[in-house]
Amino acid sequence: MRDFSTSHEHLSLNTATVRKQWKLDRIIDECARRGIRAISPWRDQVAAVGLEEIARRLRDTGTRLSGYCRGGFFPAADAAGLRAALADNRRAIDEAKTVNAPCLVLVVGALPGALDGKAAYKDLARARGEVRDGIAASLEYARQVGMPLAIEPLHPMQAADRACVNTLEQALDLCDELDPGRSGLLGVACDVYHTWWDPKLAEQIDRAGPKRLLAHHVCDWLTPTRDLLNDRGMMGDGVIELKKIRGWVEATGFGGFCEVEIFSDYWWGRPGEEVLDTCIARFSSVA
Amino acid sequence: MRDFSTSHEHLSLNTATVRKQWKLDRIIDECARRGIRAISPWRDQVAAVGLEEIARRLRDTGTRLSGYCRGGFFPAADAAGLRAALADNRRAIDEAKTVNAPCLVLVVGALPGALDGKAAYKDLARARGEVRDGIAASLEYARQVGMPLAIEPLHPMQAADRACVNTLEQALDLCDELDPGRSGLLGVACDVYHTWWDPKLAEQIDRAGPKRLLAHHVCDWLTPTRDLLNDRGMMGDGVIELKKIRGWVEATGFGGFCEVEIFSDYWWGRPGEEVLDTCIARFSSVA
Repeated sequence: MRDFSTSHEHLSLNTATVRKQWKLDRIIDECARRGIRAISPWRDQVAAVGLEEIARRLRDTGTRLSGYCRGGFFPAADAAGLRAALADNRRAIDEAKTVNAPCLVLVVGALPGALDGKAAYKDLARARGEVRDGIAASLEYARQVGMPLAIEPLHPMQAADRACVNTLEQALDLCDELDPGRSGLLGVACDVYHTWWDPKLAEQIDRAGPKRLLAHHVCDWLTPTRDLLNDRGMMGDGVIELKKIRGWVEATGFGGFCEVEIFSDYWWGRPGEEVLDTCIARFSSVA
Repeated sequence: MRDFSTSHEHLSLNTATVRKQWKLDRIIDECARRGIRAISPWRDQVAAVGLEEIARRLRDTGTRLSGYCRGGFFPAADAAGLRAALADNRRAIDEAKTVNAPCLVLVVGALPGALDGKAAYKDLARARGEVRDGIAASLEYARQVGMPLAIEPLHPMQAADRACVNTLEQALDLCDELDPGRSGLLGVACDVYHTWWDPKLAEQIDRAGPKRLLAHHVCDWLTPTRDLLNDRGMMGDGVIELKKIRGWVEATGFGGFCEVEIFSDYWWGRPGEEVLDTCIARFSSVA
């Protein structure tokens, strides 16, 4: 297992972690200044500055990517919506290429409209079928341009509105179905926040292996957790066994960045400098 | 599949649903008045009125039980805590016998202290081992007195503080391990709130079969869900496919009560009469 105590060379920052404090160009600079060598940016953050400008700044600072957030949200109420989702995923793949991302992370979506409290339908199996078909279609284009897709299972508490792929096992079943040859172009993103509770986690990480384990995200689970979306904890402030899980991840041969992704009203309310410095300190001490 | 549209004879009320409005003696009377033939009471509600008084009132009104809530919370910080948990579960089994419950529902517990924001340890595998040992020990006593134990997997969002058994598959694996002979004394309680998201739900309900499917609880999943514990929805107000899941449950041969259990700050703020009348109406229309 890699030793994180003496260096944060393997740290990547998911830029949602300081999205309320800074625009993405500033985030890139603040990371570079601290020796954070990689980031995983969100499309809206990229768009707010400009894709080409971000690509240039990444090159200039020598900043790498650990992923690009995000594609997905495939299910829709009707055929036009399904087509629009596919077109949008194609654009996301193109953007990921432009910024030289190692993978496009897929938050696959769930019941269409549920995010606004108005589910167009309740048929979860239908949503899962639309997700499968959407990934299959996107994978065709991803193969053409050589951009791996990483299915991120989200916590079951987000099954209604954000992602109806909720376990690593389910995500890997999709990989088996859609990419039986293990081309490396379809895999999973394993975020401890979404998966730490899973009794089959170690087994499924091992099953994924290095060909399919495309990203490893960390933060922590707070007790109590006050919000289903924006109350994630800084590493060490919660109950997730970060080192144990990282041991499972690295036992597969995974040698990529360990990406810190914290959606938190608390941390969004702190100075960005403090957040990054704390990420680095905790990364070295507890991740 | 049973027809619920013309009668609520199969409705049971989990008495937590109106715990803020009435004491348990009143709840029993209000249910009896409405033709609700069964309840599932909580130990603290029973204790507040008196075990013998509740047993008498159940007999007098002809009210049956669909379960008794609850045993469990096995993990502890030390040996004394583990012993205390076993003793408490023994008392819960005795109480369940006194009120003639068909099963004692187990909310198995998780990281000790996490409910107060101070986890004594973070080792989830240890907690799961203590749960297994605790159920094994309690099952010995349950066999002696003939009181089935129903392991209730809780939603993964409660894995840290309330129950580290989080899927039906995991609960049934425990049943296989601890009661390989399928004696009928160890099974599961399937609450749609905790399990609706599970891609393996249909398969695992079928696996449970009538011998191990000891209880079926309903309510609904709201979008958005504003609280991890007390924002459950009334049947029909959320996105859970209640009839589809009940179809799977009844396909196993399950013929027991369908238990309504709603932890909700909203419904606790409404008059108890309105809550019960709404439960009955929704039971007939959407459950």
